[in-house]
Amino acid sequence: MISRTLAADLPARAGQHVMIAGWLHRKRRLKSMTFLIVRDRSGLAQAVLTGQAAIEAAAALPEETVIQVEGMVTTSPQAPGGAEITEPVITLLSGPAAPPPFDLYRPSVTAALPAILDGAPATLRHPRLRAPFEISAASAAGFRSALGDLGFTEIYTPKIVESATESGASVFGIDYFGTPAYLAQSPQFYKQALVGVFERVFEVGPVFRAEPHDTARHLAQYTSLDAELGFITDYHDVMAVLREAIAGMVSAAGRNARSAVDLLGLTLPSVPGQIPEIQFTDAQEMLARYTAEDPRGEPDLAPAHERWLCEWALREHGCEFLFVTGYPMAKRPFYTHPDPARPGYSSGFDLLFRGLELVTGGQRLHRCEDYLAALADRGEDPGPYASYLQVFAHGMPPHGGFAIGLERWTARLTGAANIRSVTLFPRDLHRLIP
Amino acid sequence: MISRTLAADLPARAGQHVMIAGWLHRKRRLKSMTFLIVRDRSGLAQAVLTGQAAIEAAAALPEETVIQVEGMVTTSPQAPGGAEITEPVITLLSGPAAPPPFDLYRPSVTAALPAILDGAPATLRHPRLRAPFEISAASAAGFRSALGDLGFTEIYTPKIVESATESGASVFGIDYFGTPAYLAQSPQFYKQALVGVFERVFEVGPVFRAEPHDTARHLAQYTSLDAELGFITDYHDVMAVLREAIAGMVSAAGRNARSAVDLLGLTLPSVPGQIPEIQFTDAQEMLARYTAEDPRGEPDLAPAHERWLCEWALREHGCEFLFVTGYPMAKRPFYTHPDPARPGYSSGFDLLFRGLELVTGGQRLHRCEDYLAALADRGEDPGPYASYLQVFAHGMPPHGGFAIGLERWTARLTGAANIRSVTLFPRDLHRLIP
Repeated sequence: MISRTLAADLPARAGQHVMIAGWLHRKRRLKSMTFLIVRDRSGLAQAVLTGQAAIEAAAALPEETVIQVEGMVTTSPQAPGGAEITEPVITLLSGPAAPPPFDLYRPSVTAALPAILDGAPATLRHPRLRAPFEISAASAAGFRSALGDLGFTEIYTPKIVESATESGASVFGIDYFGTPAYLAQSPQFYKQALVGVFERVFEVGPVFRAEPHDTARHLAQYTSLDAELGFITDYHDVMAVLREAIAGMVSAAGRNARSAVDLLGLTLPSVPGQIPEIQFTDAQEMLARYTAEDPRGEPDLAPAHERWLCEWALREHGCEFLFVTGYPMAKRPFYTHPDPARPGYSSGFDLLFRGLELVTGGQRLHRCEDYLAALADRGEDPGPYASYLQVFAHGMPPHGGFAIGLERWTARLTGAANIRSVTLFPRDLHRLIP
Repeated sequence: MISRTLAADLPARAGQHVMIAGWLHRKRRLKSMTFLIVRDRSGLAQAVLTGQAAIEAAAALPEETVIQVEGMVTTSPQAPGGAEITEPVITLLSGPAAPPPFDLYRPSVTAALPAILDGAPATLRHPRLRAPFEISAASAAGFRSALGDLGFTEIYTPKIVESATESGASVFGIDYFGTPAYLAQSPQFYKQALVGVFERVFEVGPVFRAEPHDTARHLAQYTSLDAELGFITDYHDVMAVLREAIAGMVSAAGRNARSAVDLLGLTLPSVPGQIPEIQFTDAQEMLARYTAEDPRGEPDLAPAHERWLCEWALREHGCEFLFVTGYPMAKRPFYTHPDPARPGYSSGFDLLFRGLELVTGGQRLHRCEDYLAALADRGEDPGPYASYLQVFAHGMPPHGGFAIGLERWTARLTGAANIRSVTLFPRDLHRLIP
């Protein structure tokens, strides 16, 4: 049997007899001929039917039917890529397809998000709806590659855990062979423990939040790009690694998902060697001086403040990224290392990108006694943390890390208004299917 | 402050003043001097203490304490790598460490597996216990890279699902905002659906089996390397991709985890361009003829048969891998495509490696009506599969795929007797901590 040619390779095969295979993307019927547009993973290819019998047979084929087309490659300036298949012989590889929820061949998508999500196995075939996932996959590959180059080891940690890890967030309970257990809200404890083994670790995996908020930003499961490294001087070492990770993600998106980036007309951000940094309290001073609000004394930044600061960073530094450092300890998790020079403020940071917080990170406590004191300060019982605390008894270096939400990253890059449109089969308060 | 030098880079810094940091791996006290061996992610480095005060201070330091050592690099044939630090100044980066469950500096590990697992955050620091995870990380990177080169897109699919996917295996139930749901036993349905979107997909992620068997081979969570591809001619196309994936994994392990491979004294398998293949029924004939047993009529191979067949493949083909193809349909999941030429047998395969089944794969059904017939044949209600079946109504190409258990792979490569010793924090019937 003749082997398959991809649509994108057609122009190079002019004058040859080839076979292509894919989905019938679109039919265009003219007076004396019909064009079949076939979609495969590489793009679109056109076949031209001229005989009356062939035209009638094609008329009966619904869009999205999986077909194989054999014929001669003929150069044609009007065809996608400048070549088309003439005198094609069509073979069905499956039955006639049921119609998708909306026409996948129209250049833009007007369907509402719920319709897109309900019909995801068909609707995500639309090139514009598929493109964000190509960018997402490329970004994750760039993350791994950047950290691999820096001596990080990839880890795979348990998603079923004995106790909640992030006290602020809600947790899914599970019956674990008769024992109550939880779905991991983050690999935080494990990645810290494994700094003791590998020094530098990263994980790309699902995390689970029983998120009761029905917003455009929250998911019950998302993909967390986690990193943690030991032997840091302070949190600036963590920020430097994060800068490399982000640069690797942008560069991989531009390289491995070029056609998706171009199709969506995106401008990828440039990542300067040094991302600008502002201290939380300085940011508040600036907001008090230059905006109508006075957030001084607040323990966190409001969304409007994050937006304003991003605009400022773009104006002032020409950069779409901004580190805000030294948030008050009050709103940070108990494992946060305080700034030795400024008690009450953390040795940590958020990375803002295009108006939103994208990454949270910082230095962690590394001494057992500091953990016990931090838990006592918060009135928390150390009992549930016994296994975690044990890690620090065996000698842990100063360390820190960060976590990037992959979907949030892709949403920012693609300008998606709702995080669900950059999530394959999202899970939320109302959505368990498909 | 002087920046950190890694242990492995010490020989190149002879004559220079440096700072190293790591865990106090071992102290060796001689009459007039003490050697401190420091372990970091790159290996071991030696510091020589000579003054009486320094020797006494070091005597109080327990092994595994995290220290920083500044001093002069001096060439010394006896030292690891041929260089050591003289006149060192020691700084503690953390408190004195609690002793690990056993001495981590002894070359071999005699502790029993439960002790190793209970104390994992400390015990996995032992270079021999850590090494398998470096091989595992390298293998996963090789898997991704090989499939990326073949045009596969990486996907991230839901781990919380509406219904069980693999009817044979037990499933963990979860309360999903008041609705019963399950932890995904495999990404099978999603990877198939996404063949419709991307044609070729892979996923590296956790899968969950409420495995009631307490064996050396079963885990409640493991890392599944899944791939699925469309537009195949038959299952040999799937086997060809699997061959590339395995070759990529072996090659990455040899390249990126070389020191771990060498430390464990492993011989990596060679992967021939064509892995030998035997049909299930031919394998049974051979077993009947050359062994004391007659397995003909059985629907599956017993472990002893898999071992015998692997010995045969090594003898006959000089290959540690063997494809067994065309298993009876009876023991295969309902989405399995039958062999059109041999009803009752599957268009599928197992890949055996060093005596055990490592991978299961094959062609899947791709027509909606075939799914309905397959479910009816098994007396299964199609109701719970409604969302899955919908995928095939919208036009799906002939496709197939496979899944490799990462831990099982690493166990085979390293010769581990128990899969738990190549799993970071394994989950099983009895183990939820650490």
